[in-house]
Amino acid sequence: MVGSTLSSLKKTRMVILIQCIDKVGLVAAISTLLAKEQINIISMREHVDTVENRFFVRLVVNGCANIPLLKTQLNNVLPADAEINVNPQPAKKIIILVTKDHHCLSDILIRNHFKTLGADVQCVIGNHNNLQEICSRFDIPFHFISHENMDKEMYENELLSTITKYEVHYLVLAKFMRILSPSFIEKVAMPFINIHHSFLPAFIGANPYRQAYERGVKLIGATAHFVTNQLDEGPIIAQQIIPVNHSFTAADMMKAGKEIETAVLAKGLQLVFEERVLLFKNKTVIFE
Amino acid sequence: MVGSTLSSLKKTRMVILIQCIDKVGLVAAISTLLAKEQINIISMREHVDTVENRFFVRLVVNGCANIPLLKTQLNNVLPADAEINVNPQPAKKIIILVTKDHHCLSDILIRNHFKTLGADVQCVIGNHNNLQEICSRFDIPFHFISHENMDKEMYENELLSTITKYEVHYLVLAKFMRILSPSFIEKVAMPFINIHHSFLPAFIGANPYRQAYERGVKLIGATAHFVTNQLDEGPIIAQQIIPVNHSFTAADMMKAGKEIETAVLAKGLQLVFEERVLLFKNKTVIFE
Amino acid sequence: MVGSTLSSLKKTRMVILIQCIDKVGLVAAISTLLAKEQINIISMREHVDTVENRFFVRLVVNGCANIPLLKTQLNNVLPADAEINVNPQPAKKIIILVTKDHHCLSDILIRNHFKTLGADVQCVIGNHNNLQEICSRFDIPFHFISHENMDKEMYENELLSTITKYEVHYLVLAKFMRILSPSFIEKVAMPFINIHHSFLPAFIGANPYRQAYERGVKLIGATAHFVTNQLDEGPIIAQQIIPVNHSFTAADMMKAGKEIETAVLAKGLQLVFEERVLLFKNKTVIFE
Amino acid sequence: MVGSTLSSLKKTRMVILIQCIDKVGLVAAISTLLAKEQINIISMREHVDTVENRFFVRLVVNGCANIPLLKTQLNNVLPADAEINVNPQPAKKIIILVTKDHHCLSDILIRNHFKTLGADVQCVIGNHNNLQEICSRFDIPFHFISHENMDKEMYENELLSTITKYEVHYLVLAKFMRILSPSFIEKVAMPFINIHHSFLPAFIGANPYRQAYERGVKLIGATAHFVTNQLDEGPIIAQQIIPVNHSFTAADMMKAGKEIETAVLAKGLQLVFEERVLLFKNKTVIFE
Repeated sequence: MVGSTLSSLKKTRMVILIQCIDKVGLVAAISTLLAKEQINIISMREHVDTVENRFFVRLVVNGCANIPLLKTQLNNVLPADAEINVNPQPAKKIIILVTKDHHCLSDILIRNHFKTLGADVQCVIGNHNNLQEICSRFDIPFHFISHENMDKEMYENELLSTITKYEVHYLVLAKFMRILSPSFIEKVAMPFINIHHSFLPAFIGANPYRQAYERGVKLIGATAHFVTNQLDEGPIIAQQIIPVNHSFTAADMMKAGKEIETAVLAKGLQLVFEERVLLFKNKTVIFE
Repeated sequence: MVGSTLSSLKKTRMVILIQCIDKVGLVAAISTLLAKEQINIISMREHVDTVENRFFVRLVVNGCANIPLLKTQLNNVLPADAEINVNPQPAKKIIILVTKDHHCLSDILIRNHFKTLGADVQCVIGNHNNLQEICSRFDIPFHFISHENMDKEMYENELLSTITKYEVHYLVLAKFMRILSPSFIEKVAMPFINIHHSFLPAFIGANPYRQAYERGVKLIGATAHFVTNQLDEGPIIAQQIIPVNHSFTAADMMKAGKEIETAVLAKGLQLVFEERVLLFKNKTVIFE
Repeated sequence: MVGSTLSSLKKTRMVILIQCIDKVGLVAAISTLLAKEQINIISMREHVDTVENRFFVRLVVNGCANIPLLKTQLNNVLPADAEINVNPQPAKKIIILVTKDHHCLSDILIRNHFKTLGADVQCVIGNHNNLQEICSRFDIPFHFISHENMDKEMYENELLSTITKYEVHYLVLAKFMRILSPSFIEKVAMPFINIHHSFLPAFIGANPYRQAYERGVKLIGATAHFVTNQLDEGPIIAQQIIPVNHSFTAADMMKAGKEIETAVLAKGLQLVFEERVLLFKNKTVIFE
Repeated sequence: MVGSTLSSLKKTRMVILIQCIDKVGLVAAISTLLAKEQINIISMREHVDTVENRFFVRLVVNGCANIPLLKTQLNNVLPADAEINVNPQPAKKIIILVTKDHHCLSDILIRNHFKTLGADVQCVIGNHNNLQEICSRFDIPFHFISHENMDKEMYENELLSTITKYEVHYLVLAKFMRILSPSFIEKVAMPFINIHHSFLPAFIGANPYRQAYERGVKLIGATAHFVTNQLDEGPIIAQQIIPVNHSFTAADMMKAGKEIETAVLAKGLQLVFEERVLLFKNKTVIFE
């Protein structure tokens, strides 16, 4: 490419996420490079975790389309451990895993249908088949993979074989009620986003709404988080609560819980798809 | 008193709280009695816990001053197990227990000073003495009872000896950081109201804000509750949360936690002092 | 019907709403009648507006199916002006009016589809036709009645002619952007429920999100309300807000506004369909 | 000073606020300068208002004590219109204006007393004298300047004469109920921060809580804002709401309003005193 500089290319809006060990001059190095290339910074948020001595930055820029070149240039001015993520694409591709509950799935399907999700749903995979009907109404492929009559390894191999038919960036667990093995998570090799009912205080184990009811809580909550090897213990993306009271039965609490789960998963996905989330160890830095 | 009926007495506003086993006709029995006595019902909230088959009611009435007579009359028309509470007095008397943190205490002292607390603070007892100063500014007696150089029994005996010098209705633990023994709680024989930092998920043990920081939570909360033998496990009165994010250090989370602890304890005390809380087993019925 | 009393009929859960002028003994009269008929009160909430001297009550009962008889009996023991509403039916029938925005409609269609709305959507009427597609995905009739090339009277006559083909209980204005005339509202003769963007402070007139943006508000809100002759001035059912900040463009505020509008309309409809709302003058009493 | 560069000075944490017209390279210019001087950026938030073409940035740095030199250096690399604010001091000095309500004042006095306000209260000025008592409990000077028997000009001259006896950075109107003239605001020549009851929808004029009650609102709110010539119309700093319902009298709404006013003013002051607020035209940019 003759005379190829970044600035000679057509400008588009991009999000740049960078993290690395902190040292003096990182912002100067990044912003000097961008200025030299006539890339304008629309918004910038930087955070230094002084405990971990780690630098995080999110930039929205009017930038060029030659992303590999930009990444190389950034690598040249940043510490060797820098993780650089340049995101020009407007939408990600995702697969949704479900069990029986429709509330999170329906909300995602509506947003997907009206192009407000920030991602394209490629297919839905369910270990029950009752949600096939709503998917077909939106012309979204549904794969019914029952976990019955299979051991976990066979079941996960079936899942994997279906997932790998698609090229996607994220797996969304929209009230998917099976626990996935660490080896499966490793093989899929992309971020999993899960929605978890969680309470004040948190209830562990079966039937959390029954436990919340018996404890007489006044708030119930939900947490959207990345999935790591320890289910429900991955980095938290979003949390919110809804008030309840003594007049709520355990069933009423579950119903209220569904409202807040729907809202929190929608919020969590929005933050992720807008490239506002940086991961380090078991925590997130979120530039909202 | 010749011709003494309830209706012959001067009317004042009262709150009546009743709970008993549920059966058909309880509301009719209560309201017929009140109507007969020309006591007008200003507001009424009833709740039946159908799992426990238990009836709860709160009435605000324009009523008479002969409370013993009214209670006897109510007893006559209600099941034998009925707990009847008639509250004419505008304010309760309370003692506050503190350790070092001022935030909840200060808020209560201000409300007490301006007569908006709904209760009269009789004294403050601290196991440290740094809060003596703020109490003296409001002319509230402060008793410094250090837990040092004493075993738990001796310490609690000292506490008890001071508490029993006052005639009070409630003990408020306003960031009191000592665990009290079941036998002490039993001897004091009045409700204890505690404020507890609690999170999503809840962190147990020492330094919960450090744990919350390390887990990267997006909300922190607080819970006002009655104290039973299991500390932090008594019936919940009020809960609320405050959002936090990655830019909060553990110290910032503690600071935010203090704001929400102050607000939640104030709310819990208001509900209790306005006689809006009924207790049954380990849960509350709150007619807000 | 020989020996016909209410108590001889099969019991079902019912909601009873009553309002009338206040006087001593109303609760007694109602509850005595119910007790005599072996109708058990599951929950009861009563409110007296002491300024208006008006009595409001909501009862959930395990009751009989002979509603006309029950209403007659209640009428016999209540003041002449009493409005008595006994609601045995599990669901209402509704028509939805829309313009171009899909967010509130989609949420209602999903709830309707999964039978969690508490009402059955009979049809959707739009003055634009872009929402026909989503309705057809849920097999809900869509009537396109353009307001163009018609004067208001002609347009409203067209609307009326379509509405009267259905037997419904409520009209829901789910981001319907035409102002309806008082005479139309009167002719339709059923409650209208509207969702209104509203802010702190409120902005009147065209393009409220633009106004909110220019004012730099930190919260935007939404209000679900009944429609009276003065649009946006009818009795309020539900209100809620969502935080915004300087980084929000007017378009971002509109997007956030849609989220809160969806949630508030859903909440308002739930309160109405669960028979929790009593209307008096320009205000609501809501037993939540 | 021989060899005086910024980097030769002892490091302290500082907040730098800058705004100017936007152009490519501003972040690079600032951060390169800081890096050269060995000043480390702890956190940085930048915002470009693309409608106004205006650049805003807030930096927390470990910096030097030679602020004039740093400002000169920054001026050299920034556009001519740049407003540069470097804040090393841990606390500001403030005067509080009150009328009769104690709730906001008390909260500020407590925070001031325990050094958590982020500012030092120099004195309180009241146009009634009932709050003298609480000020004296905290050893804070109280100046009683009645507005009675004075015209507005005389009254404001009295105020001004008292204010100018102190060297302060901000005036806080903590439920001060007099409208101040534009010329007074101009003469005082420092930022005024006010707390305003505001509702959904907003009620203008006398007795807003009465209006809110009559409208049957379900939320009431409060707004902390800077005061400009148009009272209640200055740039908004913080807003929040509290839910109310039909059981609230106008007096109850006022009581709830006081709780939210207290919290919102505390939040607004915190944002201002932590140097998180940039002003441009009638809006704020707040790096929370």
